[in-house]
Amino acid sequence: MNQHVPPPRGFTTDELEARTCSAQAAMREVGLDALFLTTEPEFRYFTGFLSQFWESPTRPWYLVVPSQGKPIAVVPEIGAAGIAETWLDDIRTWPAPRPEDDGLRLLAQTLREMASRHRRIGVPLGHESILRMPGQDYAALTTELTTLDFVDARALVRRLRAVKSEAEIAKIHYCCQLVSDGFEALPQALTLGMSERSACKALQLDVLRRGVDSTPYLIGASGPESYDNIIMGPTDRTLEEGDVLVIDTGCTFDGYFCDFDRNFAFGTPSQATERAYRTVYSATDAGFAAARPGATTRDVWSAMWAVMEADGALGNGVGRLGHGLGMQLTEWPSNKADDPVRLAPGMVITLEPGMAFAPGKLMVHEENIVIREDGAEWLTRRAPPDLTAIS
Amino acid sequence: MNQHVPPPRGFTTDELEARTCSAQAAMREVGLDALFLTTEPEFRYFTGFLSQFWESPTRPWYLVVPSQGKPIAVVPEIGAAGIAETWLDDIRTWPAPRPEDDGLRLLAQTLREMASRHRRIGVPLGHESILRMPGQDYAALTTELTTLDFVDARALVRRLRAVKSEAEIAKIHYCCQLVSDGFEALPQALTLGMSERSACKALQLDVLRRGVDSTPYLIGASGPESYDNIIMGPTDRTLEEGDVLVIDTGCTFDGYFCDFDRNFAFGTPSQATERAYRTVYSATDAGFAAARPGATTRDVWSAMWAVMEADGALGNGVGRLGHGLGMQLTEWPSNKADDPVRLAPGMVITLEPGMAFAPGKLMVHEENIVIREDGAEWLTRRAPPDLTAIS
Repeated sequence: MNQHVPPPRGFTTDELEARTCSAQAAMREVGLDALFLTTEPEFRYFTGFLSQFWESPTRPWYLVVPSQGKPIAVVPEIGAAGIAETWLDDIRTWPAPRPEDDGLRLLAQTLREMASRHRRIGVPLGHESILRMPGQDYAALTTELTTLDFVDARALVRRLRAVKSEAEIAKIHYCCQLVSDGFEALPQALTLGMSERSACKALQLDVLRRGVDSTPYLIGASGPESYDNIIMGPTDRTLEEGDVLVIDTGCTFDGYFCDFDRNFAFGTPSQATERAYRTVYSATDAGFAAARPGATTRDVWSAMWAVMEADGALGNGVGRLGHGLGMQLTEWPSNKADDPVRLAPGMVITLEPGMAFAPGKLMVHEENIVIREDGAEWLTRRAPPDLTAIS
Repeated sequence: MNQHVPPPRGFTTDELEARTCSAQAAMREVGLDALFLTTEPEFRYFTGFLSQFWESPTRPWYLVVPSQGKPIAVVPEIGAAGIAETWLDDIRTWPAPRPEDDGLRLLAQTLREMASRHRRIGVPLGHESILRMPGQDYAALTTELTTLDFVDARALVRRLRAVKSEAEIAKIHYCCQLVSDGFEALPQALTLGMSERSACKALQLDVLRRGVDSTPYLIGASGPESYDNIIMGPTDRTLEEGDVLVIDTGCTFDGYFCDFDRNFAFGTPSQATERAYRTVYSATDAGFAAARPGATTRDVWSAMWAVMEADGALGNGVGRLGHGLGMQLTEWPSNKADDPVRLAPGMVITLEPGMAFAPGKLMVHEENIVIREDGAEWLTRRAPPDLTAIS
């Protein structure tokens, strides 16, 4: 059923070491003694530690990347056996959950040890970041370590993560191929009168059988001629003659996401719907051509928006026309008019032209690409150029 | 295939209103003008808004619960259509992502409007909470609203959420029943020589077919006689004669979790393994008997630990013997020796007796229960009293 060769799981120690060294070089440039990280993707990026246990919000997990040497894990005891299998040597644990001190003293001591030179710790604090620890604990930490500066290191971390290695690209590509297979086979499972929920479940089961590990994002939305959102659903709404269904999915393989959608017309689509579909399809082509090294995310946005505007787009309620993709469903950067980021080889992004083609009627298309030296390369297999009709 | 009647999806407006009123009564007691909430379960608890879009970490979503009236959503434009379907009236949006002001001005203005009386805003800041917004933005918010106090409201929110309504319990119960069906059918799909990954995939596909919506947590661990962790895997490890496999899963129905595990022996289990299994099984019985209204989580812990200690348990690296369960895989409270929380009717918890019965060898059992007026009630169907053997 699955014609593709799965890439190896995990990463070589060489790769994890290279990521750490790159971070340390960037840290030296800005005078940081250590990076302090709290979220799953950041922890995984430097350690290779992949565990579904992050689904449990109870316990904080901390990683400290010093200015040289391996990262240090400050983690709940329950994580010790798992972390011991990574390339890390220094694993500090406490018996969590322990509300009166959930690792905070151990963490403060570790950061103090690491920050003797510049007395500056980098923490992702800026746009698109969160601190995965109690707000009170972060306040107590910065108060206790009052002689240290905690400065935003979001830009440093996201710049590193945005450029993917070949091993990372292979995982995303594989996931995109499995889900492309699933989307191409889906029309055989779709029928008039079925619900959005059944349609999405059919795809979910199929892609899991084909080899994706999980389906954390699998939404469906539908309506006459089109849909009014791309973030809700699926619901029990029945798909009738004249409806359009969009399914947008982020599936994972070995911790790496695909993120793309497909549109399906039930019965005969209206001319306005068909036209809108061809417009976003052409916009995707335009975005693909624009997505070259040295071009900016604004260039990619402009190329796509020009096509949609020329065809009468009323607006775009999504806020952007695509974004970075990798360990998270959506990553930095955004394809936006006012936030130009220069594209570089190895960056993986989505092209997501979407528009309202009539009041309350959206048409959104999405494909995934990687930037190469000589231009963009598809990771997904293109959607059909004409809207797929289900009879 | 599925013999159970699914409970209705969503919640009545009455129920969402009742939750809000309860929160407002508690807010009055401690002199709060508003609750400020940032995470998915807290947002959903008061609005009923269920969307997989929270998987995207890019945009913050804010909810303000004033001291009277309906909650106010301060959300990205992309969320407007979805929120409009909830019981909320006041929906304030901005075109996100907008790095230079990602909703912060709109949020500050909303909080300022709401906080004219006590000038105090409640925010979950304590143990087991996170702020799902950039650290820099939270700092800027509290600086801009310098005349307002931001105080920890974690206890208020978690006390409300810990006691489930009948509608919530029905969703958890349904999910537990579907996954009990899946676990009971699983031995037919298990064979010597298969991998942990294939075993887990078989369960994943089966429970999705039976009607769960998603499988955010589905781990597998194995080894000779037993396993050394319950948070990693599944891996490609082959299951051989003498191995024990544990599968622990949190599946969801309509946004509510089950969380329980099952153990499987491949070939003939050792006497030590069989004995450990019977010990944690008995410990579960003891925990069930202890879990009555008025008893504490410490009583439940003590009842279970006494059984395991008497049978030679070397320790427990998990940090507790069960926890709250609901919209999240793990919720407050914890069944712990030193953190006594009084059980009340409507609380849903897991009983999770686990122990090292030999160095590096764990045996962990887990069931889900709801506390009723006259004692505990099973939500899962009990595991078999003897370890299931796969030949």
